Amino acid sequence: MALIVQKYGGTSVGSVERIEAVADKVKAFHDQGHQLVVVVSAMSGETNRLIGLAKEIDHRPDPRELDVVVATGEQVTIGLLAIALRKRGLEARSYAGWQVRILTDGAHGKARILDIDTAALRADLEAGRIAVVAGFQGVDALGNVTTLGRGGSDTTAVALAAALGADECQIYTDVDGVYTTDPRVEARARRLPRITFEEMLEMASQGSKVLQIRSVEFAGKYRVPLRVLSSFQDGPGTLITFEEDDGVETPLVSGIAFNRDEAKVTLVGIPDCPGVAYRILGPIADANIEVDVIVQNVGVDGTTSLTFTVHRNDMERAAAILKGVARELGAREVLTDDRVAKVAIVGVGMRSHAGVAARMFKALAEENINIQMISTSEIKVTVVIEEKYLELAVRALHSAFDLDKVGEPAAVAVS
Amino acid sequence: MALIVQKYGGTSVGSVERIEAVADKVKAFHDQGHQLVVVVSAMSGETNRLIGLAKEIDHRPDPRELDVVVATGEQVTIGLLAIALRKRGLEARSYAGWQVRILTDGAHGKARILDIDTAALRADLEAGRIAVVAGFQGVDALGNVTTLGRGGSDTTAVALAAALGADECQIYTDVDGVYTTDPRVEARARRLPRITFEEMLEMASQGSKVLQIRSVEFAGKYRVPLRVLSSFQDGPGTLITFEEDDGVETPLVSGIAFNRDEAKVTLVGIPDCPGVAYRILGPIADANIEVDVIVQNVGVDGTTSLTFTVHRNDMERAAAILKGVARELGAREVLTDDRVAKVAIVGVGMRSHAGVAARMFKALAEENINIQMISTSEIKVTVVIEEKYLELAVRALHSAFDLDKVGEPAAVAVS
Repeated sequence: MALIVQKYGGTSVGSVERIEAVADKVKAFHDQGHQLVVVVSAMSGETNRLIGLAKEIDHRPDPRELDVVVATGEQVTIGLLAIALRKRGLEARSYAGWQVRILTDGAHGKARILDIDTAALRADLEAGRIAVVAGFQGVDALGNVTTLGRGGSDTTAVALAAALGADECQIYTDVDGVYTTDPRVEARARRLPRITFEEMLEMASQGSKVLQIRSVEFAGKYRVPLRVLSSFQDGPGTLITFEEDDGVETPLVSGIAFNRDEAKVTLVGIPDCPGVAYRILGPIADANIEVDVIVQNVGVDGTTSLTFTVHRNDMERAAAILKGVARELGAREVLTDDRVAKVAIVGVGMRSHAGVAARMFKALAEENINIQMISTSEIKVTVVIEEKYLELAVRALHSAFDLDKVGEPAAVAVS
Repeated sequence: MALIVQKYGGTSVGSVERIEAVADKVKAFHDQGHQLVVVVSAMSGETNRLIGLAKEIDHRPDPRELDVVVATGEQVTIGLLAIALRKRGLEARSYAGWQVRILTDGAHGKARILDIDTAALRADLEAGRIAVVAGFQGVDALGNVTTLGRGGSDTTAVALAAALGADECQIYTDVDGVYTTDPRVEARARRLPRITFEEMLEMASQGSKVLQIRSVEFAGKYRVPLRVLSSFQDGPGTLITFEEDDGVETPLVSGIAFNRDEAKVTLVGIPDCPGVAYRILGPIADANIEVDVIVQNVGVDGTTSLTFTVHRNDMERAAAILKGVARELGAREVLTDDRVAKVAIVGVGMRSHAGVAARMFKALAEENINIQMISTSEIKVTVVIEEKYLELAVRALHSAFDLDKVGEPAAVAVS
């Protein structure tokens, strides 16, 4: 008997039929003697419908009130799933975020979980009841409804698993695991039976879209065993592990991540002195714009340039903010480009192997793809390139690191 | 400056455009210097859609979970209206039932309000903010979401008006007031400029559908001045008063109420001894079936019959319960009939005038309409007739009591 937190995303609960299918799946686990907390998202399309209503009224709706509207999406699903479970003779009880309660800060639309009161859920589990919890939402200290932002249901599931000390947190989605890269771009992409937490983090931050990054951070922080698997087909999915496998051969590169939604902003000719980066990126952070890759090169003649990438939707806003900053700093100009994409190779194996970056640049050079920005971390090398070369770059790298060769030493070991 | 509680029903907030129109209306009141609490229902059709989803899963969904699902309807509207008000430069803040908090008992689907915490709303009003409250819903002492049952948004509005000591509670709906009878049945029906609380109570309980009966009871109990008016056209609506007008001539009959959704259940040949009515109606009440008209006639030969009416949806269930009771009591049989309707004349004037009932029976006799059951109260005479005669009966009575003659002494005085 294990304590399992399961999370079913919007597609998995996208219709009454699918909710019934989820109920069947949950029942099967319950029948095996497991204790279950089930986290659900809004039915697919519902969150967008609700945001659409709000935006019909106001292009930039008040964030507190938008959360009130949007949080109803998950509330419908928890009630419906609880009804479906009870129809199957199971004791089940639904919880909105405030009922659990999942305490968050007050950052509407992108709130962070501060604390979870597990008393009610534990009482349910001890009584053999299945708790059905609304993902993506919480309540702040003043009693306002908050949402965690897109994909936040994963975070809810992992946070609950951590708070309850669950044996496993299972994220059911419409894919059957984490792939070496997006199969829509490279048909030879393969499912990884396991991936390290750090690799997953880098994959997720690059837009692999399987798991929301904050949930992976959470899982890592609290050492929650996390498994990604499909709601629609049986299979072991991908287990996210915390240590590099002992005795299992480690691939150089586990996967190729990429992201199209990038835009590049450059400040040219800024003074090369302390505090400049902060004066540029401080106002950007204050405006709640998330910055991704940041590159600053060595200065020449006392001036330098700083380039960073943001989500395309934020580019205009970032540029507008920087106009003022550029004046103050005496910068030469602010350049923007929203036709860029980011590609990265990710793998814990590269820690102990030199030459991985060089092999990446060679593969791109052979395809005549110009590299605009380079950024590296211990287990990842990221490049920003012109968007039109994205698919070509992904396929070239997938092949260069032997990711399409099943059973090859360079590919991930099958457990 | 007055403190006004306004309530807008489902049709009034049935689309984004209509929510914007409500926001304009609210702004106009606010601009006049009034303090405002606005109660809203779910967008029209939404509650039925949500119930439909639940019933697709389970024909008889768990009541606690159904409330969780259904309560989202109003939550969407409060958020959208608050967004629309804020777009107009007004400070507005939405409240779900639990946020106010509106404490109810735990009778899911038909909960009663026990207490309202007005602290947050008062703080809003004092700060010049408009509070937007979800109608129809509350929270029980254990933190479960409850709903007050259909039409419960009116009750929420009146209860809030009472708790806040509001100067007026305005119920905006799709009709411009209370009519002498339903204009769809009698084209010559007229709007009543005012009606007494007691008459309104009797009209509402007869299915006049303008106001939910519990809200009228509440208004009477706490002496909340209540006004019914149209969201779509300007006009004074109908004011519900607490005293028979002084100096204004009182009509014999103010209106004709009726209800189609009735079914008749009769226990034939039950012992004519103390406690029998309770033994019959106790189990019905335990099953949460609301009984309307009850008639028991004088017994003959030690046995008698008892007939009562229930909502048609409850007839089968009531009959099933009575099968057992009938056996215990040695009753001869249980008869049911769901092709009946109820018609009533209502008027405080009949208190002081004899012969009103007789005039009613004469009017029905002239149309050859057989009366199956009769029940009377101080200001109302109710009959149950075969359903197919309903419209005919309403028109005959409307004319018999001169309700279609404007300015006639027998009709209500125009203030």
